[in-house]
Amino acid sequence: MVATTRLTREAFDALVAAELPVAIQMGFRIETLDHGHVVARAVCQEGFLRPGGTIAGPVMMALADYTMYAVTMSLIGPVALAVTTNLNINFLRKPAPRDLLAEGRILKLGKRLAVSEVILRSDGEREPVAHVTGTYSIPPREGETG
Amino acid sequence: MVATTRLTREAFDALVAAELPVAIQMGFRIETLDHGHVVARAVCQEGFLRPGGTIAGPVMMALADYTMYAVTMSLIGPVALAVTTNLNINFLRKPAPRDLLAEGRILKLGKRLAVSEVILRSDGEREPVAHVTGTYSIPPREGETG
Amino acid sequence: MVATTRLTREAFDALVAAELPVAIQMGFRIETLDHGHVVARAVCQEGFLRPGGTIAGPVMMALADYTMYAVTMSLIGPVALAVTTNLNINFLRKPAPRDLLAEGRILKLGKRLAVSEVILRSDGEREPVAHVTGTYSIPPREGETG
Amino acid sequence: MVATTRLTREAFDALVAAELPVAIQMGFRIETLDHGHVVARAVCQEGFLRPGGTIAGPVMMALADYTMYAVTMSLIGPVALAVTTNLNINFLRKPAPRDLLAEGRILKLGKRLAVSEVILRSDGEREPVAHVTGTYSIPPREGETG
Repeated sequence: MVATTRLTREAFDALVAAELPVAIQMGFRIETLDHGHVVARAVCQEGFLRPGGTIAGPVMMALADYTMYAVTMSLIGPVALAVTTNLNINFLRKPAPRDLLAEGRILKLGKRLAVSEVILRSDGEREPVAHVTGTYSIPPREGETG
Repeated sequence: MVATTRLTREAFDALVAAELPVAIQMGFRIETLDHGHVVARAVCQEGFLRPGGTIAGPVMMALADYTMYAVTMSLIGPVALAVTTNLNINFLRKPAPRDLLAEGRILKLGKRLAVSEVILRSDGEREPVAHVTGTYSIPPREGETG
Repeated sequence: MVATTRLTREAFDALVAAELPVAIQMGFRIETLDHGHVVARAVCQEGFLRPGGTIAGPVMMALADYTMYAVTMSLIGPVALAVTTNLNINFLRKPAPRDLLAEGRILKLGKRLAVSEVILRSDGEREPVAHVTGTYSIPPREGETG
Repeated sequence: MVATTRLTREAFDALVAAELPVAIQMGFRIETLDHGHVVARAVCQEGFLRPGGTIAGPVMMALADYTMYAVTMSLIGPVALAVTTNLNINFLRKPAPRDLLAEGRILKLGKRLAVSEVILRSDGEREPVAHVTGTYSIPPREGETG
């Protein structure tokens, strides 16, 4: 995992602005971007909170999806047409009303599918608030047999 | 499934306003609310769209979660503390840039867990755009052994 | 779904004998085989039972996998190299100590992925004992761009 | 995770013999048993193999279920009535025709649910062949409110 990523942070941000504007609206951003390993942050917003001061489930799912997208792009470069095909989330603990951090890593990069794992934590906490696995479908490259 | 639901639409809307304000912000609403069977609608918004005119995955996940919540509440009545423990989604087709309809139904109502299935379709289409299963954890009622 | 299946029962049985011998050992068999819709049966065996007379979870998972394989083959014809990439199962009720029936149907047939749903019931019962969704990866055909 | 497990290997083996005889028939066994962390082994058998010399998916699912059971029991002690409620598996690579090792660890132990993760590898390999998450439902203890 010491290989250099095929993606700069600037290229990823531009791709997200074009392809996943909802992530921009939600204020998601990349903290670290390595080859097959990404840390992303959701800056806490008033609109994310549920009564009792916990963060809504859909915010966690959106952050996990964004993180898996970054993990996949870090390996194959900026490919607009990659799409999520499956996402499975286990909600483990109520997140605190502060920033969420998502740590994503690749489990398997195939020619056609990329499977990733994302662990979500409240900023400063060690115990995870949610665990996610998901699959991205990678479009065939030109001249390539899928 | 001809039993009367334990929930009026007004009681559900009030519960959502208090507990799941993100669903209000996203403009989700209930179309039909029966005992263990719910149809919900996401009115298409500019902010939901991805380039190419398709609806972003996080919108679909949020709508599915909202629908499962309604299915569970239709059976147990308005219980604020029920929480999602697991959600699995398979993305099947790109949704058209119009309203999304979600049809949810109960698979199993236990004392402690409620498992539901949600099928998402573009308004007017027959083929599903996503298939979701999920689990809600039901808090023990007073004086009850979980 | 009135289209004729691309698979005869004999061709499927031959494929399973070669590719999935564990299904033969477990006594699984096809009841009906239509285009995108399959009913399979696990004849109850002493070795399947858990104390209390219920059927072990791994038997249910194996039957669901076999059924998804048949659903996929019914649409694309006998293709040895198709492999399961994801399976999600929700266990809903304890199965009775008798035959298990699995009803499988296609949710989406793409060029590269086939997503199916399987509902498991005890023979003679209406309520499901488990709900399964899963994905098969379809190998590229010759001369084809995946 | 340095706490002592609430379960001896002997007590677990006795529980499995009574409750999960299919695991005995398949030759599964525990390699290490710690508090919330377990390594299990499936000794390779003729009957596990598929043509091409790979191990059948149902064997991997059964081993993962057995491992999650051990992880849960290591934390709560030998409780016969715990049952799997959900299992999600991503198949990543074809396993080699040799022993499978499963490393399981707890993600969240609640009063009512235990969520675990299991990573499957071929003996001697570093890259995983499958990734599994699953949930066990824990029965209420006597005199306890679930």
